[in-house]
Amino acid sequence: MSESSAVSGTAAEGSGRHGGGDALVFDVVVVGAGPVGENVADRAAAAGLSVAVVESELVGGECSYWACMPSKALLRPVIARADAGRLPGLAGAVREPLDTDAVLARRDEFASHWKDDGQLGWLDSIGVSLYRGHGRLDGERRVTVEGPDGGRTALTARHAVAVCTGSRAVVPGLPGIEDARPWTSREATSAKAAPGRLAVVGGGVVGVEMATAWAALGSRVTLLVRGDGLLPRMEPFAGELVAEALAGAGAEVRTGASVAAVERSRPDGPVTVVLEGGERLEADEILFATGRAPRTGDLGLETVGLEPGSWLSVDDSCRVRDSEWLYAVGDVNHRALLTHQGKYQARIAGAAIAARAAGDTPDTRAWGAHAATADHAAVPQVVFTDPEVAAVGLSLAEAERAGHRVRAVDYDLSSVAGASLYADGYRGRARMVVDLEREILLGVTLAGPGVGELIHAATVAVVGEVPISRLWHAVPSYPTISEVWLRLLETYRG
Amino acid sequence: MSESSAVSGTAAEGSGRHGGGDALVFDVVVVGAGPVGENVADRAAAAGLSVAVVESELVGGECSYWACMPSKALLRPVIARADAGRLPGLAGAVREPLDTDAVLARRDEFASHWKDDGQLGWLDSIGVSLYRGHGRLDGERRVTVEGPDGGRTALTARHAVAVCTGSRAVVPGLPGIEDARPWTSREATSAKAAPGRLAVVGGGVVGVEMATAWAALGSRVTLLVRGDGLLPRMEPFAGELVAEALAGAGAEVRTGASVAAVERSRPDGPVTVVLEGGERLEADEILFATGRAPRTGDLGLETVGLEPGSWLSVDDSCRVRDSEWLYAVGDVNHRALLTHQGKYQARIAGAAIAARAAGDTPDTRAWGAHAATADHAAVPQVVFTDPEVAAVGLSLAEAERAGHRVRAVDYDLSSVAGASLYADGYRGRARMVVDLEREILLGVTLAGPGVGELIHAATVAVVGEVPISRLWHAVPSYPTISEVWLRLLETYRG
Repeated sequence: MSESSAVSGTAAEGSGRHGGGDALVFDVVVVGAGPVGENVADRAAAAGLSVAVVESELVGGECSYWACMPSKALLRPVIARADAGRLPGLAGAVREPLDTDAVLARRDEFASHWKDDGQLGWLDSIGVSLYRGHGRLDGERRVTVEGPDGGRTALTARHAVAVCTGSRAVVPGLPGIEDARPWTSREATSAKAAPGRLAVVGGGVVGVEMATAWAALGSRVTLLVRGDGLLPRMEPFAGELVAEALAGAGAEVRTGASVAAVERSRPDGPVTVVLEGGERLEADEILFATGRAPRTGDLGLETVGLEPGSWLSVDDSCRVRDSEWLYAVGDVNHRALLTHQGKYQARIAGAAIAARAAGDTPDTRAWGAHAATADHAAVPQVVFTDPEVAAVGLSLAEAERAGHRVRAVDYDLSSVAGASLYADGYRGRARMVVDLEREILLGVTLAGPGVGELIHAATVAVVGEVPISRLWHAVPSYPTISEVWLRLLETYRG
Repeated sequence: MSESSAVSGTAAEGSGRHGGGDALVFDVVVVGAGPVGENVADRAAAAGLSVAVVESELVGGECSYWACMPSKALLRPVIARADAGRLPGLAGAVREPLDTDAVLARRDEFASHWKDDGQLGWLDSIGVSLYRGHGRLDGERRVTVEGPDGGRTALTARHAVAVCTGSRAVVPGLPGIEDARPWTSREATSAKAAPGRLAVVGGGVVGVEMATAWAALGSRVTLLVRGDGLLPRMEPFAGELVAEALAGAGAEVRTGASVAAVERSRPDGPVTVVLEGGERLEADEILFATGRAPRTGDLGLETVGLEPGSWLSVDDSCRVRDSEWLYAVGDVNHRALLTHQGKYQARIAGAAIAARAAGDTPDTRAWGAHAATADHAAVPQVVFTDPEVAAVGLSLAEAERAGHRVRAVDYDLSSVAGASLYADGYRGRARMVVDLEREILLGVTLAGPGVGELIHAATVAVVGEVPISRLWHAVPSYPTISEVWLRLLETYRG
């Protein structure tokens, strides 16, 4: 047994760390050092537990290098330019296109140039040991790390193993897909230049964000969506407004378009997209933003009676069903595939692990300290397109499906003074879904320029189960876009 | 008795409107048709009461023509330009100054070119009668309107008179003040061109907003503040950040500077500002943003036993103390001199008037339908400077003075991923004040680019009295600036 590189922390020191046999013993072993794994480790370490984390790629994970951070670095100048362009007195100044090189350089900074040095110091500062390599379960409470040099390290977890390996983009197995070298979210967020023509397949969040970014950075974008609209999990008006805006920005949005095959005959040549029905489109790159799969295929799940490649079903403390010691936190449990929600689960799971390690009974009642209740009731999401879309909780359709007696209250954001001041020709809409039994909010969706930061008020209202009669006293400052809250409540009260 | 012009509504029709004598009888008479009076009228009319409103100037009030709307129309392009200028890829495009003429033209649109035609149709649509002229109380439940032609109309209120006359800017009685023709907020928001040199006296909200606007629109601004900082009612860091930014924008900020006299020897010449100590400064215009006084001097208060010119003290339903029928709503009651808070009071007071008119007992318990409880606990305010400042509830100093056992939790906004993505070189700060007995929030203050829309989440948390343990489940979306919520809570929990 050779040890993989323990670059930080106190792997070789400390009391009670080493077990009796050939394995290094920690209280907690975390597999995957993205934001979720980092937060589980942080919480457990803060509770006085010894923690090892195992990472096969960069510490900081998908979000830091190939998702949230680089994508928002690409999108922020696009949005700020669009905002400025809607204001007389400033519009003339932003008529010229974005400086793509400068935007990409800023993106590189936000992706830390795809190096994780900055994260290592942090892990070290909280006393967590990092093992670089591929981690696999090897029976109960055991993880084997296969290091970069092929050597193996056996880790034993006294209390818990937390699987935080996340998800990966799924590329459909279409004819010609291998030669086509398709982009996934990774390539779309880390590309070194704007392709001349970019085909984007998929109308979910990744699809619309990357279409927005690259269209503004110089690509001719065609967005191919199998269904009949964008952002299909959200209130319908959100996708409609984004589709209109993308078209206005010069992108072609094609709904009802299924890709049947792709062809790239020369490695340096264009890619041809063949649609069902036979139509052929040509592009320089093709991005598939068509879904995610759990990164659990090569994780040793079979050694603990679980199915390799499956999503891991957990209870509200993020503990795998029927296990005493195995946790699955973040994307991998399929509760909500969002960085912030995974970090939330990590805070909850880390605290639950610590409580159980201390022999305490965790508080897993709804909204208790050890229950990720918000996963069911209040998952927020901001889509950084122009216009922005922000939502939390249940859509009308979801609330109805769940059997709630509800009323949807809509308001045209352009009628809010703060919105019309924000941008000339403001277009946007808001909806709140009211539980008529309890007179509380089940969900809110906003779409329009500048609404991204508005959603947290809705999150507090939904999570706090603040009654409508009390929300009536929550005065929005005039003239902000937040005054839509007053308008929604007035509309509800009639 | 000649009737002043009743331009809308149903003054001459309807049942039970006319009393037995020489007066027109309504259920409710509202004096002042700014946003506050409009909302009282709206609520009362919606409850089926007959309503007259009296207005001596423009229907829509100070906010629509000489405050919120025009000031924010001036400021929005300034803020959007500053935001764009902090983003590589876009910064080059906004190096040229704002197009002042275009900004002023947009401002004129938002001030409806100082015409109230748009408001009249709305009053008409809700069935409210407008009397143009100066309204004065004339004993219990009676209001006399002196019309533009000097004629008088006597109105009688069956249930309530609501005084919603607001406040006016106070200009100190300094030597030379009359010849100096100083600006107040009215001239500062409606000026037709940027003065070459503008002296601004006062470091409150009006002072810093107008200094920000006119500095960006081409004026050389000197801000003269008697105290030692800006925005003295807010957390100290707010004023510090705004002062730094004003200096960076080319304005001169002078604290500890008291104006002793002003001189304008020629009507078309410059104004000289004489400071205590003898220093003399020259400017083209001077704005006094030094406080407000109630517009109650010529309101007939003496006919009902009240002091002309005084603020009107009210209970939580906005009814004047010891009166059965007189309400004072908005600035005039001195509870919170903010349009949105006055509108809130108007909703509460309108409902209380309707409840009492129907013989019901109003619910004036804390947070009840007829108590403006938020005036004490949760007044929000956004200052539209660069950086923006937003606050709600109590500052640390206010909470301590009120005897709460509190802890202030601070966080540097530049450490929030969403903030660093929002603008390069982001500078900002957040503070939440926690009530340690109840573990709820008493107040939150934010200062930094793009924070204006964040404050409503704090307002919901304060008003909803949402416990910290529940707020822990309110997940901010990544990467938004709202993630400061998570950081504040993490910092609090240690």
